[in-house]
Amino acid sequence: MGEMEQGAYVDSLLNLESLRKSLVRQEDTIIFSLIERSKYPINSRLYHESNAASPLHFFINESEAVQAKAGRYVSPEENAFFPDSLPHPMLPPPKHKPVLHPSGASININEKIFNHYLKTLIPLVAAKGADDGNYATTAASDLACLQALSRRIHFGKFVAEVKFRDSPQDYTPAILAKDREGLMALLTFESVEEAIKKRVEKKAMVFGQDVENQESGNFKVKPSLVSQLYGEWVIPLTKFVQVEYLLRRLD
Amino acid sequence: MGEMEQGAYVDSLLNLESLRKSLVRQEDTIIFSLIERSKYPINSRLYHESNAASPLHFFINESEAVQAKAGRYVSPEENAFFPDSLPHPMLPPPKHKPVLHPSGASININEKIFNHYLKTLIPLVAAKGADDGNYATTAASDLACLQALSRRIHFGKFVAEVKFRDSPQDYTPAILAKDREGLMALLTFESVEEAIKKRVEKKAMVFGQDVENQESGNFKVKPSLVSQLYGEWVIPLTKFVQVEYLLRRLD
Repeated sequence: MGEMEQGAYVDSLLNLESLRKSLVRQEDTIIFSLIERSKYPINSRLYHESNAASPLHFFINESEAVQAKAGRYVSPEENAFFPDSLPHPMLPPPKHKPVLHPSGASININEKIFNHYLKTLIPLVAAKGADDGNYATTAASDLACLQALSRRIHFGKFVAEVKFRDSPQDYTPAILAKDREGLMALLTFESVEEAIKKRVEKKAMVFGQDVENQESGNFKVKPSLVSQLYGEWVIPLTKFVQVEYLLRRLD
Repeated sequence: MGEMEQGAYVDSLLNLESLRKSLVRQEDTIIFSLIERSKYPINSRLYHESNAASPLHFFINESEAVQAKAGRYVSPEENAFFPDSLPHPMLPPPKHKPVLHPSGASININEKIFNHYLKTLIPLVAAKGADDGNYATTAASDLACLQALSRRIHFGKFVAEVKFRDSPQDYTPAILAKDREGLMALLTFESVEEAIKKRVEKKAMVFGQDVENQESGNFKVKPSLVSQLYGEWVIPLTKFVQVEYLLRRLD
């Protein structure tokens, strides 16, 4: 990556309009990944043991090791689910100037995301029916969902950084007072959240429709489920990341 | 997987209507994966060396090893890109009765798919612009495209098996005469192929549209490109697999 492109990349992570565009584009990725997961039944043998020893845990851990070698976790946009002892990248990492404040850059709430995905989301998205034996493709599909959700939710760090840089005076008193509720109130815009929920519901209708039979009213993933996922989970967790980030912003 | 589900799974691979449904569903997967790849520029450092030593080769090879442990290549639907010395699955594989004739089951044209994908498809699908440094996510996206295309194309084995079982008398003379052209003619239905090309073009318009601005006429992947991909490449290679399979069907 040349220096000019590096600069453009860093700038795009510090510009509210380009962050918004990325978040909108990430909605497509999340919905595609959920639609793909919906091809498979729960396939509970992947999850049957305690999470830490389940085949899915193993699969994600090893997949992240391969992706770490390819440099995935050099990017400030990516957070590993099992970050301990990942191997170093084989390609020299791009030399970005750091985008995030160091204390907040390391925030990682993937354990929360992982547990919620397993317990709540899979049963709602998975196809009905008995185990179909497609464990490896199911696990790959789980990983795609988890990574898409994790990237979206941790984007809260960039959003918080940009908001702080734009008007530090608005956030500083609440940060100094460690006032989580006050920060949450500053970051909450209900009309924006409603617009997001409507948009992802519409996207789920568009992307999950039966294209050969558009009148069928069948959707691969229930559009209201995607709206609910965003309203009850993705948006609140993104704001949680923003609050955590801001609380460390003056360290 | 219980015995009943195993039976249902095997039956679904030997039934022309359920194969057709799977192929139609796989179109969505292929188009989603291409749309995802279109987020990234070519990122040519992944491919810069001879294929056999490129970072992408390395990434796919290691990813396939992880997926092999999770049992991916136990499925007759899956064919590895680098099948040599893959590790054994950790979960006991499902005990399907074999669906395919043994001589044809091992057909693997992934090298052809890999080379065509790299040389022809990536430059047409990738975002314009300079290297963005997202090598790991680009490679993961390449792997998703390659696996989706490979599964689709190798489904020709099941299609050929079912067609042969349904009317062996139609195929046996051409098989015994090693008459590739005759077999290709028996497997070619132009009106069906045209319908597939139209459908995937429509799907690319639906899935790749700008949902916030449906009148824009912007698509993430050019719909005519997907139609062309099927017409010039996916369908001919699927038929190639069918012919190769049938030629071995009486071994």
